[in-house]
Amino acid sequence: MYKIVLMRHGESTWNLDNRFTGWTDVDLTEKGIAEARQAGKVLKEAGFSFDLAYTSVLKRAIRTLWLTMDEMDMMWLPVINDWRLNERHYGALQGLNKSETAAKYGDEQVLVWRRSYDTPPNPLPENDPRTSFGDPRYAGLQRSQIPLTECLKDTVERVMPAWDDTIAPAIRAGKRIIISAHGNSLRALIKMLDGISDADIVGLNIPNGQPLVYELDADLKPIKHYYLGDQSAIEAALQAVASQGKAK
Amino acid sequence: MYKIVLMRHGESTWNLDNRFTGWTDVDLTEKGIAEARQAGKVLKEAGFSFDLAYTSVLKRAIRTLWLTMDEMDMMWLPVINDWRLNERHYGALQGLNKSETAAKYGDEQVLVWRRSYDTPPNPLPENDPRTSFGDPRYAGLQRSQIPLTECLKDTVERVMPAWDDTIAPAIRAGKRIIISAHGNSLRALIKMLDGISDADIVGLNIPNGQPLVYELDADLKPIKHYYLGDQSAIEAALQAVASQGKAK
Repeated sequence: MYKIVLMRHGESTWNLDNRFTGWTDVDLTEKGIAEARQAGKVLKEAGFSFDLAYTSVLKRAIRTLWLTMDEMDMMWLPVINDWRLNERHYGALQGLNKSETAAKYGDEQVLVWRRSYDTPPNPLPENDPRTSFGDPRYAGLQRSQIPLTECLKDTVERVMPAWDDTIAPAIRAGKRIIISAHGNSLRALIKMLDGISDADIVGLNIPNGQPLVYELDADLKPIKHYYLGDQSAIEAALQAVASQGKAK
Repeated sequence: MYKIVLMRHGESTWNLDNRFTGWTDVDLTEKGIAEARQAGKVLKEAGFSFDLAYTSVLKRAIRTLWLTMDEMDMMWLPVINDWRLNERHYGALQGLNKSETAAKYGDEQVLVWRRSYDTPPNPLPENDPRTSFGDPRYAGLQRSQIPLTECLKDTVERVMPAWDDTIAPAIRAGKRIIISAHGNSLRALIKMLDGISDADIVGLNIPNGQPLVYELDADLKPIKHYYLGDQSAIEAALQAVASQGKAK
Protein backbone atom coordinates (compact mmCIF):
# COMPACT_ATOMS: atom_id res chain seq x y z
CA MET A 1 0.00 0.00 0.00
CA TYR A 2 2.66 2.51 1.11
CA LYS A 3 6.45 2.40 1.01
CA ILE A 4 8.65 4.68 3.15
CA VAL A 5 12.42 4.88 3.51
CA LEU A 6 14.22 5.44 6.81
CA MET A 7 17.88 6.27 6.83
CA ARG A 8 20.41 6.91 9.59
CA HIS A 9 22.99 9.58 8.70
CA GLY A 10 26.39 8.50 7.42
CA GLU A 11 29.39 8.22 9.76
CA SER A 12 29.98 11.45 11.69
CA THR A 13 33.23 12.85 13.04
CA TRP A 14 32.15 11.86 16.55
CA ASN A 15 31.14 8.36 15.48
CA LEU A 16 34.78 8.18 14.37
CA ASP A 17 36.05 9.74 17.62
CA ASN A 18 33.71 7.40 19.54
CA ARG A 19 32.13 10.30 21.45
CA PHE A 20 28.60 10.79 22.74
CA THR A 21 27.09 13.21 20.23
CA GLY A 22 23.40 13.79 20.96
CA TRP A 23 22.36 17.28 19.93
CA THR A 24 25.95 18.39 19.19
CA ASP A 25 25.99 19.48 15.54
CA VAL A 26 28.92 17.50 14.18
CA ASP A 27 29.45 16.91 10.47
CA LEU A 28 29.95 13.78 8.36
CA THR A 29 33.36 12.20 7.80
CA GLU A 30 34.60 11.46 4.27
CA LYS A 31 33.32 7.91 4.83
CA GLY A 32 29.95 9.31 5.90
CA ILE A 33 29.78 11.42 2.74
CA ALA A 34 30.56 8.35 0.64
CA GLU A 35 27.89 6.34 2.50
CA ALA A 36 25.28 9.03 1.80
CA ARG A 37 26.18 9.19 -1.90
CA GLN A 38 26.04 5.41 -2.11
CA ALA A 39 22.59 5.44 -0.48
CA GLY A 40 21.39 7.83 -3.18
CA LYS A 41 22.83 5.60 -5.92
CA VAL A 42 21.20 2.51 -4.42
CA LEU A 43 17.81 4.23 -4.14
CA LYS A 44 18.05 5.50 -7.71
CA GLU A 45 19.04 2.11 -9.09
CA ALA A 46 16.14 0.51 -7.21
CA GLY A 47 13.78 2.94 -8.92
CA PHE A 48 12.78 4.91 -5.83
CA SER A 49 11.35 8.39 -6.12
CA PHE A 50 10.00 10.71 -3.42
CA ASP A 51 7.54 13.54 -2.99
CA LEU A 52 8.70 14.78 0.40
CA ALA A 53 11.66 14.40 2.76
CA TYR A 54 11.89 14.74 6.52
CA THR A 55 15.03 15.34 8.49
CA SER A 56 16.24 16.81 11.77
CA VAL A 57 17.91 20.20 12.31
CA LEU A 58 21.33 18.56 12.71
CA LYS A 59 23.75 18.76 9.81
CA ARG A 60 24.87 15.12 9.78
CA ALA A 61 21.29 14.09 8.92
CA ILE A 62 20.68 17.07 6.61
CA ARG A 63 23.91 16.54 4.66
CA THR A 64 23.14 12.84 4.34
CA LEU A 65 19.77 13.79 2.86
CA TRP A 66 21.25 16.44 0.55
CA LEU A 67 23.85 14.02 -0.81
CA THR A 68 21.16 11.37 -1.32
CA MET A 69 18.91 13.87 -3.14
CA ASP A 70 21.85 15.04 -5.25
CA GLU A 71 22.72 11.50 -6.34
CA MET A 72 19.05 10.85 -7.16
CA ASP A 73 18.94 14.11 -9.17
CA MET A 74 16.12 15.29 -6.91
CA MET A 75 17.61 18.37 -5.28
CA TRP A 76 14.21 20.06 -5.73
CA LEU A 77 12.53 17.64 -3.30
CA PRO A 78 10.67 19.55 -0.56
CA VAL A 79 12.37 19.04 2.80
CA ILE A 80 10.84 19.47 6.26
CA ASN A 81 13.40 20.04 9.02
CA ASP A 82 11.84 18.93 12.30
CA TRP A 83 13.81 19.25 15.56
CA ARG A 84 11.70 16.38 16.93
CA LEU A 85 13.66 14.02 14.64
CA ASN A 86 16.93 15.03 16.34
CA GLU A 87 19.14 12.41 17.98
CA ARG A 88 18.47 11.56 21.61
CA HIS A 89 19.94 14.29 23.83
CA TYR A 90 22.83 12.73 25.72
CA GLY A 91 22.91 15.15 28.66
CA ALA A 92 26.19 15.58 30.51
CA LEU A 93 27.75 12.81 28.41
CA GLN A 94 27.66 14.95 25.23
CA GLY A 95 31.20 15.38 23.96
CA LEU A 96 32.74 12.67 26.16
CA ASN A 97 34.62 9.74 24.65
CA LYS A 98 32.64 6.53 25.04
CA SER A 99 35.63 4.34 25.91
CA GLU A 100 37.02 6.86 28.41
CA THR A 101 33.58 7.18 29.98
CA ALA A 102 33.40 3.39 30.22
CA ALA A 103 36.86 3.26 31.79
CA LYS A 104 35.86 5.94 34.31
CA TYR A 105 32.34 4.84 35.27
CA GLY A 106 32.57 1.19 34.32
CA ASP A 107 31.12 -0.65 31.34
CA GLU A 108 28.01 -1.45 33.35
CA GLN A 109 27.07 2.16 34.13
CA VAL A 110 27.67 3.22 30.52
CA LEU A 111 25.54 0.31 29.37
CA VAL A 112 22.74 1.54 31.65
CA TRP A 113 22.98 5.04 30.16
CA ARG A 114 23.14 3.71 26.64
CA ARG A 115 20.75 0.82 26.92
CA SER A 116 18.23 1.56 29.64
CA TYR A 117 14.92 2.65 28.17
CA ASP A 118 14.05 5.07 30.94
CA THR A 119 17.23 6.08 32.79
CA PRO A 120 18.68 9.31 31.39
CA PRO A 121 22.31 10.35 31.91
CA ASN A 122 22.86 13.31 34.25
CA PRO A 123 21.44 16.50 32.74
CA LEU A 124 23.64 19.28 31.44
CA PRO A 125 23.76 22.14 33.97
CA GLU A 126 21.51 25.00 32.77
CA ASN A 127 24.57 27.26 32.32
CA ASP A 128 26.66 24.65 30.51
CA PRO A 129 27.93 25.96 27.13
CA ARG A 130 26.81 22.65 25.62
CA THR A 131 23.09 23.42 26.13
CA SER A 132 20.98 24.34 23.08
CA PHE A 133 19.45 27.42 24.70
CA GLY A 134 20.00 30.45 22.47
CA ASP A 135 20.67 28.36 19.36
CA PRO A 136 18.63 30.07 16.60
CA ARG A 137 17.36 26.79 15.19
CA TYR A 138 15.39 26.28 18.41
CA ALA A 139 14.21 29.90 18.68
CA GLY A 140 10.58 28.91 18.10
CA LEU A 141 10.51 26.50 21.05
CA GLN A 142 9.59 26.97 24.68
CA ARG A 143 12.62 26.70 26.93
CA SER A 144 10.98 23.67 28.56
CA GLN A 145 10.90 21.89 25.18
CA ILE A 146 14.70 22.03 24.90
CA PRO A 147 16.08 19.00 26.74
CA LEU A 148 19.09 18.94 29.07
CA THR A 149 19.16 15.14 28.89
CA GLU A 150 16.97 12.35 27.55
CA CYS A 151 16.45 8.64 27.98
CA LEU A 152 15.14 6.76 24.94
CA LYS A 153 11.63 6.98 26.42
CA ASP A 154 11.88 10.79 26.32
CA THR A 155 13.04 10.64 22.70
CA VAL A 156 10.12 8.38 21.79
CA GLU A 157 7.73 10.83 23.43
CA ARG A 158 8.91 13.75 21.29
CA VAL A 159 9.29 11.77 18.04
CA MET A 160 5.74 10.36 18.18
CA PRO A 161 3.97 13.74 17.76
CA ALA A 162 6.09 14.42 14.66
CA TRP A 163 4.86 11.11 13.22
CA ASP A 164 1.24 11.67 14.23
CA ASP A 165 1.01 15.35 13.26
CA THR A 166 2.93 15.56 10.02
CA ILE A 167 4.54 12.35 8.76
CA ALA A 168 1.63 9.88 8.96
CA PRO A 169 -0.86 12.35 7.41
CA ALA A 170 1.56 12.93 4.51
CA ILE A 171 1.89 9.18 3.91
CA ARG A 172 -1.90 8.76 4.01
CA ALA A 173 -2.18 11.61 1.49
CA GLY A 174 -0.11 9.49 -0.88
CA LYS A 175 3.24 11.26 -0.49
CA ARG A 176 6.24 9.01 -1.01
CA ILE A 177 8.57 9.97 1.83
CA ILE A 178 12.14 9.52 3.01
CA ILE A 179 13.25 10.25 6.58
CA SER A 180 16.93 11.02 7.18
CA ALA A 181 17.50 10.94 10.92
CA HIS A 182 19.47 9.44 13.82
CA GLY A 183 19.95 6.13 15.63
CA ASN A 184 17.52 6.92 18.44
CA SER A 185 14.88 8.95 16.60
CA LEU A 186 14.73 6.05 14.13
CA ARG A 187 14.50 3.56 17.02
CA ALA A 188 11.49 5.55 18.21
CA LEU A 189 9.79 5.23 14.81
CA ILE A 190 10.64 1.53 14.45
CA LYS A 191 9.44 0.82 18.01
CA MET A 192 6.09 2.32 17.11
CA LEU A 193 5.85 0.73 13.65
CA ASP A 194 6.81 -2.79 14.72
CA GLY A 195 5.41 -2.67 18.27
CA ILE A 196 8.79 -3.50 19.83
CA SER A 197 8.94 -3.67 23.64
CA ASP A 198 10.77 -1.14 25.82
CA ALA A 199 13.30 -3.83 26.72
CA ASP A 200 13.99 -4.96 23.17
CA ILE A 201 14.19 -1.61 21.38
CA VAL A 202 17.40 -0.56 23.15
CA GLY A 203 19.16 -3.56 21.59
CA LEU A 204 18.17 -2.70 18.04
CA ASN A 205 21.12 -1.39 16.03
CA ILE A 206 20.68 0.66 12.87
CA PRO A 207 23.64 0.92 10.49
CA ASN A 208 24.81 4.31 9.19
CA GLY A 209 23.80 5.41 5.70
CA GLN A 210 21.79 2.33 4.66
CA PRO A 211 18.28 2.89 3.24
CA LEU A 212 15.72 0.89 5.25
CA VAL A 213 12.44 0.32 3.42
CA TYR A 214 9.17 -0.19 5.29
CA GLU A 215 6.16 -1.37 3.33
CA LEU A 216 2.99 -0.37 5.15
CA ASP A 217 -0.64 -1.39 4.80
CA ALA A 218 -3.60 1.01 4.63
CA ASP A 219 -3.48 1.41 8.43
CA LEU A 220 0.26 2.15 8.26
CA LYS A 221 1.06 -1.21 9.84
CA PRO A 222 4.28 -2.80 8.51
CA ILE A 223 3.91 -5.62 6.00
CA LYS A 224 7.67 -6.09 5.74
CA HIS A 225 10.93 -4.20 5.96
CA TYR A 226 14.38 -4.63 4.42
CA TYR A 227 17.64 -2.81 3.82
CA LEU A 228 18.43 -1.89 0.22
CA GLY A 229 21.85 -2.44 -1.29
CA ASP A 230 24.84 -4.65 -0.72
CA GLN A 231 24.12 -6.95 2.24
CA SER A 232 27.76 -7.35 3.27
CA ALA A 233 28.14 -3.55 3.50
CA ILE A 234 25.03 -3.43 5.68
CA GLU A 235 26.38 -6.18 7.92
CA ALA A 236 29.73 -4.36 8.27
CA ALA A 237 27.94 -1.10 9.13
CA LEU A 238 25.88 -2.95 11.76
CA GLN A 239 28.99 -4.45 13.35
CA ALA A 240 30.61 -1.02 13.50
CA VAL A 241 27.60 0.38 15.39
CA ALA A 242 27.36 -2.58 17.76
CA SER A 243 30.99 -2.29 18.85
CA GLN A 244 30.79 1.38 19.88
CA GLY A 245 30.97 2.39 23.53
CA LYS A 246 33.06 -0.45 24.85
CA ALA A 247 36.15 0.29 26.96
CA LYS A 248 39.17 -0.64 24.89
CA MET B 1 12.34 48.02 8.91
CA TYR B 2 13.00 44.84 6.90
CA LYS B 3 16.10 43.52 5.19
CA ILE B 4 16.00 40.80 2.50
CA VAL B 5 18.76 39.24 0.42
CA LEU B 6 18.42 38.38 -3.27
CA MET B 7 21.03 36.24 -4.93
CA ARG B 8 21.52 34.98 -8.47
CA HIS B 9 22.99 31.47 -8.65
CA GLY B 10 26.73 31.06 -9.24
CA GLU B 11 28.11 30.43 -12.74
CA SER B 12 26.46 27.42 -14.38
CA THR B 13 27.89 25.03 -16.95
CA TRP B 14 25.74 26.67 -19.62
CA ASN B 15 26.75 30.18 -18.57
CA LEU B 16 30.23 28.88 -19.31
CA ASP B 17 29.13 27.29 -22.62
CA ASN B 18 27.23 30.50 -23.42
CA ARG B 19 23.98 28.62 -24.07
CA PHE B 20 20.38 29.63 -23.48
CA THR B 21 19.45 27.71 -20.34
CA GLY B 22 15.95 28.64 -19.15
CA TRP B 23 14.31 25.69 -17.42
CA THR B 24 17.10 23.27 -18.37
CA ASP B 25 18.44 21.89 -15.08
CA VAL B 26 22.18 22.49 -15.47
CA ASP B 27 24.57 22.46 -12.53
CA LEU B 28 27.14 24.96 -11.23
CA THR B 29 30.71 25.07 -12.49
CA GLU B 30 33.64 24.96 -10.06
CA LYS B 31 33.69 28.75 -10.30
CA GLY B 32 29.96 28.85 -9.51
CA ILE B 33 30.53 26.64 -6.47
CA ALA B 34 33.30 28.98 -5.28
CA GLU B 35 31.04 32.02 -5.84
CA ALA B 36 28.28 30.46 -3.75
CA ARG B 37 30.68 29.59 -0.92
CA GLN B 38 32.09 33.10 -1.03
CA ALA B 39 28.56 34.54 -0.83
CA GLY B 40 27.98 32.52 2.34
CA LYS B 41 31.25 33.77 3.84
CA VAL B 42 30.41 37.37 2.99
CA LEU B 43 26.92 37.08 4.51
CA LYS B 44 28.31 35.47 7.65
CA GLU B 45 31.03 38.09 8.06
CA ALA B 46 28.44 40.84 7.61
CA GLY B 47 26.44 39.30 10.48
CA PHE B 48 23.45 38.17 8.44
CA SER B 49 21.15 35.47 9.71
CA PHE B 50 17.94 34.10 8.22
CA ASP B 51 14.70 32.44 9.28
CA LEU B 52 13.56 31.20 5.88
CA ALA B 53 14.95 30.68 2.38
CA TYR B 54 13.24 30.65 -0.98
CA THR B 55 14.59 29.12 -4.14
CA SER B 56 13.45 27.62 -7.43
CA VAL B 57 13.25 23.93 -8.36
CA LEU B 58 16.41 24.21 -10.49
CA LYS B 59 19.63 22.82 -9.09
CA ARG B 60 21.89 25.77 -9.94
CA ALA B 61 19.84 27.98 -7.58
CA ILE B 62 19.33 25.23 -4.98
CA ARG B 63 23.02 24.31 -4.85
CA THR B 64 23.95 27.98 -4.57
CA LEU B 65 21.61 28.23 -1.60
CA TRP B 66 22.88 25.00 -0.01
CA LEU B 67 26.51 26.12 -0.28
CA THR B 68 25.59 29.52 1.18
CA MET B 69 23.72 27.87 4.07
CA ASP B 70 26.62 25.49 4.65
CA GLU B 71 29.16 28.32 4.85
CA MET B 72 26.86 30.22 7.23
CA ASP B 73 26.50 27.05 9.38
CA MET B 74 22.74 27.25 8.83
CA MET B 75 22.01 24.00 7.02
CA TRP B 76 18.88 23.68 9.17
CA LEU B 77 17.30 26.78 7.60
CA PRO B 78 13.79 25.98 6.26
CA VAL B 79 13.76 26.13 2.46
CA ILE B 80 10.75 26.66 0.21
CA ASN B 81 11.26 25.45 -3.36
CA ASP B 82 8.88 27.38 -5.62
CA TRP B 83 8.79 26.66 -9.35
CA ARG B 84 7.55 30.23 -9.85
CA LEU B 85 11.06 31.44 -9.02
CA ASN B 86 12.51 29.46 -11.95
CA GLU B 87 14.47 31.21 -14.67
CA ARG B 88 12.54 32.60 -17.63
CA HIS B 89 11.65 29.75 -19.99
CA TYR B 90 13.64 30.30 -23.17
CA GLY B 91 11.40 28.33 -25.56
CA ALA B 92 12.98 26.88 -28.68
CA LEU B 93 16.25 28.63 -27.85
CA GLN B 94 16.89 26.40 -24.81
CA GLY B 95 20.13 24.54 -25.31
CA LEU B 96 21.34 26.66 -28.25
CA ASN B 97 24.65 28.49 -28.11
CA LYS B 98 24.09 32.23 -27.83
CA SER B 99 26.89 33.22 -30.22
CA GLU B 100 25.85 30.62 -32.83
CA THR B 101 22.26 31.78 -32.53
CA ALA B 102 23.40 35.37 -33.03
CA ALA B 103 25.45 34.34 -36.07
CA LYS B 104 22.46 32.49 -37.54
CA TYR B 105 19.61 34.90 -36.83
CA GLY B 106 21.61 38.10 -36.45
CA ASP B 107 22.55 40.05 -33.36
CA GLU B 108 19.44 42.15 -33.71
CA GLN B 109 16.96 39.23 -33.59
CA VAL B 110 18.77 37.69 -30.61
CA LEU B 111 18.69 41.05 -28.88
CA VAL B 112 14.92 41.20 -29.43
CA TRP B 113 14.52 37.74 -27.89
CA ARG B 114 16.81 38.56 -25.02
CA ARG B 115 15.84 42.14 -24.42
CA SER B 116 12.28 42.68 -25.53
CA TYR B 117 9.94 42.79 -22.57
CA ASP B 118 7.01 41.15 -24.36
CA THR B 119 8.31 39.21 -27.38
CA PRO B 120 8.93 35.55 -26.52
CA PRO B 121 11.19 33.29 -28.58
CA ASN B 122 9.41 30.58 -30.59
CA PRO B 123 7.80 28.02 -28.30
CA LEU B 124 9.13 24.50 -27.92
CA PRO B 125 6.96 22.07 -29.90
CA GLU B 126 4.67 20.15 -27.52
CA ASN B 127 6.45 16.89 -28.34
CA ASP B 128 9.96 18.33 -28.00
CA PRO B 129 12.08 16.32 -25.53
CA ARG B 130 13.14 19.64 -23.98
CA THR B 131 9.66 20.39 -22.60
CA SER B 132 9.06 20.03 -18.84
CA PHE B 133 5.92 17.92 -19.22
CA GLY B 134 6.29 14.70 -17.25
CA ASP B 135 9.07 16.07 -15.04
CA PRO B 136 8.11 14.98 -11.49
CA ARG B 137 9.00 18.35 -9.98
CA TYR B 138 6.08 19.87 -11.92
CA ALA B 139 3.68 17.00 -11.25
CA GLY B 140 1.42 19.21 -9.12
CA LEU B 141 0.87 21.76 -11.91
CA GLN B 142 -1.76 22.02 -14.59
CA ARG B 143 -0.31 21.35 -18.03
CA SER B 144 -1.27 24.91 -18.98
CA GLN B 145 0.95 26.27 -16.17
CA ILE B 146 4.07 24.69 -17.68
CA PRO B 147 5.43 27.14 -20.25
CA LEU B 148 6.75 26.31 -23.73
CA THR B 149 8.31 29.76 -23.98
CA GLU B 150 8.24 33.02 -22.04
CA CYS B 151 9.01 36.68 -22.53
CA LEU B 152 10.10 38.60 -19.45
CA LYS B 153 6.52 39.85 -19.05
CA ASP B 154 5.35 36.23 -18.71
CA THR B 155 8.03 35.59 -16.11
CA VAL B 156 6.98 38.67 -14.15
CA GLU B 157 3.38 37.47 -14.22
CA ARG B 158 4.24 34.13 -12.62
CA VAL B 159 6.81 35.49 -10.14
CA MET B 160 4.46 38.13 -8.73
CA PRO B 161 1.98 35.64 -7.21
CA ALA B 162 4.89 33.94 -5.41
CA TRP B 163 5.81 37.30 -3.89
CA ASP B 164 2.24 38.22 -3.01
CA ASP B 165 1.13 34.82 -1.70
CA THR B 166 4.12 33.59 0.25
CA ILE B 167 7.21 35.82 0.29
CA ALA B 168 5.72 39.21 1.24
CA PRO B 169 3.54 37.71 4.02
CA ALA B 170 6.61 35.98 5.47
CA ILE B 171 8.56 39.26 5.48
CA ARG B 172 5.64 41.07 7.14
CA ALA B 173 5.55 38.30 9.75
CA GLY B 174 9.12 39.24 10.64
CA LYS B 175 10.94 36.39 8.89
CA ARG B 176 14.43 37.30 7.71
CA ILE B 177 14.57 35.82 4.22
CA ILE B 178 17.04 35.03 1.45
CA ILE B 179 15.97 34.28 -2.13
CA SER B 180 18.34 32.26 -4.32
CA ALA B 181 17.05 32.49 -7.87
CA HIS B 182 17.82 33.42 -11.48
CA GLY B 183 18.57 36.47 -13.61
CA ASN B 184 15.04 36.93 -14.86
CA SER B 185 13.04 35.86 -11.80
CA LEU B 186 15.16 38.35 -9.85
CA ARG B 187 14.55 41.01 -12.51
CA ALA B 188 10.84 40.42 -11.94
CA LEU B 189 11.20 41.01 -8.20
CA ILE B 190 13.43 44.07 -8.65
CA LYS B 191 11.07 45.54 -11.27
CA MET B 192 8.25 45.33 -8.75
CA LEU B 193 10.28 46.54 -5.76
CA ASP B 194 11.85 49.53 -7.50
CA GLY B 195 9.01 50.28 -9.94
CA ILE B 196 11.28 49.93 -12.98
CA SER B 197 9.68 50.42 -16.41
CA ASP B 198 9.15 47.60 -18.93
CA ALA B 199 11.75 49.23 -21.18
CA ASP B 200 14.41 49.65 -18.50
CA ILE B 201 14.16 46.31 -16.71
CA VAL B 202 15.49 44.32 -19.68
CA GLY B 203 18.75 46.28 -19.44
CA LEU B 204 19.32 45.50 -15.77
CA ASN B 205 22.14 42.99 -15.27
CA ILE B 206 22.51 40.96 -12.09
CA PRO B 207 25.91 39.38 -11.37
CA ASN B 208 26.18 35.69 -10.46
CA GLY B 209 26.61 34.72 -6.82
CA GLN B 210 26.66 38.21 -5.26
CA PRO B 211 24.31 38.87 -2.31
CA LEU B 212 22.07 41.86 -3.06
CA VAL B 213 20.53 43.43 0.05
CA TYR B 214 17.22 45.31 -0.09
CA GLU B 215 16.19 47.33 2.94
CA LEU B 216 12.42 47.77 2.93
CA ASP B 217 10.09 50.03 4.86
CA ALA B 218 6.92 48.90 6.64
CA ASP B 219 5.05 48.88 3.29
CA LEU B 220 7.84 46.76 1.75
CA LYS B 221 8.99 49.73 -0.34
CA PRO B 222 12.77 49.87 -0.85
CA ILE B 223 14.73 52.36 1.23
CA LYS B 224 18.02 51.35 -0.37
CA HIS B 225 19.81 48.42 -1.91
CA TYR B 226 23.44 47.37 -2.24
CA TYR B 227 25.66 44.40 -3.08
CA LEU B 228 27.64 42.91 -0.21
CA GLY B 229 31.28 41.98 -0.55
CA ASP B 230 34.24 42.96 -2.68
CA GLN B 231 33.13 45.63 -5.15
CA SER B 232 35.70 44.73 -7.82
CA ALA B 233 34.47 41.12 -7.83
CA ILE B 234 30.91 42.39 -8.25
CA GLU B 235 31.96 44.64 -11.13
CA ALA B 236 33.79 41.73 -12.83
CA ALA B 237 30.73 39.48 -12.41
CA LEU B 238 28.54 42.21 -13.93
CA GLN B 239 30.83 42.58 -16.94
CA ALA B 240 30.76 38.82 -17.49
CA VAL B 241 26.95 38.84 -17.58
CA ALA B 242 26.72 41.90 -19.83
CA SER B 243 28.99 40.35 -22.47
CA GLN B 244 26.93 37.16 -22.90
CA GLY B 245 24.95 36.52 -26.08
CA LYS B 246 27.05 38.50 -28.51
CA ALA B 247 28.25 36.88 -31.75
CA LYS B 248 32.01 36.41 -31.44
